[in-house]
Amino acid sequence: MVARIGSVRSRYFQTKLMNEMNGEATLHPIGVIRSTIRTRAEAPKQGSEGAPDAWLEVNDSAAEALDGLARGDELIVLTWLHQAKRDVLKVHPRSDPLRPLTGVFATRSPDRPNPIGIHTVTVREVIGNRLRIGPMEAIDGTPVVDIKPVEC
Amino acid sequence: MVARIGSVRSRYFQTKLMNEMNGEATLHPIGVIRSTIRTRAEAPKQGSEGAPDAWLEVNDSAAEALDGLARGDELIVLTWLHQAKRDVLKVHPRSDPLRPLTGVFATRSPDRPNPIGIHTVTVREVIGNRLRIGPMEAIDGTPVVDIKPVEC
Repeated sequence: MVARIGSVRSRYFQTKLMNEMNGEATLHPIGVIRSTIRTRAEAPKQGSEGAPDAWLEVNDSAAEALDGLARGDELIVLTWLHQAKRDVLKVHPRSDPLRPLTGVFATRSPDRPNPIGIHTVTVREVIGNRLRIGPMEAIDGTPVVDIKPVEC
Repeated sequence: MVARIGSVRSRYFQTKLMNEMNGEATLHPIGVIRSTIRTRAEAPKQGSEGAPDAWLEVNDSAAEALDGLARGDELIVLTWLHQAKRDVLKVHPRSDPLRPLTGVFATRSPDRPNPIGIHTVTVREVIGNRLRIGPMEAIDGTPVVDIKPVEC
């Protein structure tokens, strides 16, 4: 694709061009988690470890993409773990100092270069743009970047 | 956190500040897929549908995060589907025109607002910064943004 400097381009195309130039990509949140969990310290390490249900509020601009989802569906929710540290490459697994330092790609630590959370949840209820889902260990205010069915 | 205008800040901090301001986040690829699949047309829709093995080449700057991974490990690889269309909210599932238009969040279409690919693979071989993994349906040149173990 030839980019003609000076021509009129959409914001989308400008973003795409930039991505091609420096290898980076910009995530635009499509929604947000609303939860009773307010801090990382309160959050279980995995959803299966006693996490509560939460609300996933989808932005109006992406609401059309929910069409076809219903109560009982099993979903993979991808979040942006906005409080994670991105400059961490090794951790003690499960925050246990007795376990040797391990590369973050061999752990589920939220601290990692691109802190994307993967959450397997069940849809409990759908009300307009809002899904009640669980179990969900992400804290209140966590941006949501994608939703996929577990099976196609 | 108070940002003092004019103080010296790391690139990381600048990025974080920007994210807090506009709700967006920037992905920095940590590696790339090297595959015999060259185009979307050649790629199976899912890894389990006859996808080949591929090489995952991790950047030198993130290589330390691989420590602890070994042959036989089951991994979730997250990719940035760089050829996907981000302005698509509904599709015919499996590209089958007989199936009704469905919201992309109810499908595994690569075309979606944040085209992050999820691939469950087995590590066949580790050579330095390079992992031979499979099955992998992503095309050659696909940026990799995260690697996680299937279980912790």
